[in-house]
Amino acid sequence: TGYGDDHTREIMRQELRERLIQAEREGRPLRVYCGYDPRTTDLHLGHTITMHKLRQFQEFGHHVIFLIGSFTSLIGDPDDVKAREILTPEKVAENAQTYKEQAFKILDPKKTEVRHNSEWLAELGFLDVIKLAQHFTVQQFLAREGFSNRLEDGNPIYLHEFFYPLMQGYDPIGLKADAQVGGQDQLFNLMAGRQLMQKLGVQPQVVIAMGESLPGTDGIEKMSKSKGNHIALLSEPGQMYTSLMKLPDFAMPLYFKLLLGWSQEDVDDMMVRINRGEVEPQEVKAGMALDITTIFHGREAALQGREFSRKAMQEGGIPDDIAEHVILSDTPLVDLLVVTGLCKSKGDAKRQIQGGGVRRDSDKVTDFDEIVRVTDLPTVLQY
Amino acid sequence: TGYGDDHTREIMRQELRERLIQAEREGRPLRVYCGYDPRTTDLHLGHTITMHKLRQFQEFGHHVIFLIGSFTSLIGDPDDVKAREILTPEKVAENAQTYKEQAFKILDPKKTEVRHNSEWLAELGFLDVIKLAQHFTVQQFLAREGFSNRLEDGNPIYLHEFFYPLMQGYDPIGLKADAQVGGQDQLFNLMAGRQLMQKLGVQPQVVIAMGESLPGTDGIEKMSKSKGNHIALLSEPGQMYTSLMKLPDFAMPLYFKLLLGWSQEDVDDMMVRINRGEVEPQEVKAGMALDITTIFHGREAALQGREFSRKAMQEGGIPDDIAEHVILSDTPLVDLLVVTGLCKSKGDAKRQIQGGGVRRDSDKVTDFDEIVRVTDLPTVLQY
Repeated sequence: TGYGDDHTREIMRQELRERLIQAEREGRPLRVYCGYDPRTTDLHLGHTITMHKLRQFQEFGHHVIFLIGSFTSLIGDPDDVKAREILTPEKVAENAQTYKEQAFKILDPKKTEVRHNSEWLAELGFLDVIKLAQHFTVQQFLAREGFSNRLEDGNPIYLHEFFYPLMQGYDPIGLKADAQVGGQDQLFNLMAGRQLMQKLGVQPQVVIAMGESLPGTDGIEKMSKSKGNHIALLSEPGQMYTSLMKLPDFAMPLYFKLLLGWSQEDVDDMMVRINRGEVEPQEVKAGMALDITTIFHGREAALQGREFSRKAMQEGGIPDDIAEHVILSDTPLVDLLVVTGLCKSKGDAKRQIQGGGVRRDSDKVTDFDEIVRVTDLPTVLQY
Repeated sequence: TGYGDDHTREIMRQELRERLIQAEREGRPLRVYCGYDPRTTDLHLGHTITMHKLRQFQEFGHHVIFLIGSFTSLIGDPDDVKAREILTPEKVAENAQTYKEQAFKILDPKKTEVRHNSEWLAELGFLDVIKLAQHFTVQQFLAREGFSNRLEDGNPIYLHEFFYPLMQGYDPIGLKADAQVGGQDQLFNLMAGRQLMQKLGVQPQVVIAMGESLPGTDGIEKMSKSKGNHIALLSEPGQMYTSLMKLPDFAMPLYFKLLLGWSQEDVDDMMVRINRGEVEPQEVKAGMALDITTIFHGREAALQGREFSRKAMQEGGIPDDIAEHVILSDTPLVDLLVVTGLCKSKGDAKRQIQGGGVRRDSDKVTDFDEIVRVTDLPTVLQY
């Protein structure tokens, strides 16, 4: 990521200042956006770093667009090792169903414009694609780390994978955007947008690349659903709290900084106090887990989540890596036993209840028709 | 062109035999086509090699399609050195205006279906293009000679240039073709069609790659309008005859073989007779020039062309590289003086006529309103 140098960053800072002055002179807010690809149903904590940045712009009165990559996610941002599966528009639409709801955990719903990039990308015909593609060279793409690695290792790069930067690069034109926020790993695609705008004679967007990314639950690798080290925004309070408590201690500084907005000084102070033995790391982490869970669920639910988590951890019978299942409406307990995979069928579920093998919050279940109500949550089912 | 080996050629021969049997069993003719890109207005003698092959199929009762590359020619088959200019659909349509007329110099108009590949290619949306592109790898394209050279030499390859094989590869699907005829230099694109058909579960077309290509007027490089060594199908009889007479002697064998259908044996015999001094090369060439000109203009016009050519060569005042201009309807002589570039304007033309500076077939022109009639052609204007 050769663009991610201090020089480029300084230029972007300067351009952002100028763009702010320009917009003020024109008596309009900046149009700022970030795109999120619904390759899966879940946004996770890692995504909230850019959302917090958008939120900041919102608080300063700028116009924020939450862009759902309904078209880009058909192919997905190219992987370093092999081509991703192409999704159908239907699958993507299904994945995106709760995206807005998830984003509004951070963004102000009343001040957020939600858009889908299929609005403009799906409308392009072959000739339009040719006209966009002529502004990029194959060499430029091959220089991108993920592709150069594959070329070297003899792993195939499929032609459609080269389309991704072009697609993402066309978004700011579709949106008439002043600025795009993105992760550091998105720099290539962010700059593709600038390049395309310049070639098409449009004032290029300011690129705001977040310097640091959030490590996943392993504390090391960048949080990502495909790596399985993510904490989903829609995870239940208890689950979220538990996952946060299981983070390695060394991951805490970045979580404080990126999710709770602590300054580097405050983070350093805290680490010094831990090292001096003035505070217990577990206590510090518990505070952090409660505060982060609160962002997504409110204080009350976060406190309940903490209780649930502690209870689950203490009760010997409950496995440590307890599976949590989200229900959106009241659901028969037998159905839940099936969808959670605890039982093979409703018949099986009923036999297990009959045999006394099913417990709910440690109590034996006896009623086949028992309903799990949304208001009762969280609840622990065991079989 | 790694595909152009004897092995592949043998497989193609075998497949063609099988396809002929299959078609006969199904009681239908083969669907055979060749595509021609109207990057310029002119088809030339080099294009007639594939046309003769199509004509052969026609004579055997097969269904022949003359495909005008109205969409492929927007970008053109990638050049070995640099990207070609992208043409507008309007420009391409203008170039293609007389393509059919030109092709019918060889093909039987009553038995030829004329199609344009924009019929199917212009209809593809971005998602369709993605779905086609996923069947090709970047590595496969980079292995193509024209691209590998550029990569080595550090010359940019623009992304849209990779679309060409994909576009041409989709044609046989659009046409439901059994076989495609093409030049040896088109093997990569011809095979792309087979590859795409296989991936999409369609019986792949048989590829009929012509083994030899026609050298241009220099006798060495492949005939091509962009190299300026071509003889246009629409060139006037005198011009065509003159150009053929100027060919280097060593180019004659391929002209006899590829344009007049001589066997290798007959060609060899003729060369032996020339070498023994039994015939004069100029005489042999004159016979060849007359026969080839006859194909495109008929015997009578070819004989007139020969006279015109001889007259032009003999008359000292007429430059050897005389410019010839085609008119399709009766045209005022003053207009012709302007469009041929002999005079700057009609006023200038009239002044030159007044001054006695304009000659037609060696006679001084005196009448401002003189009309050059199509029936008077050829005629030599001098200024």
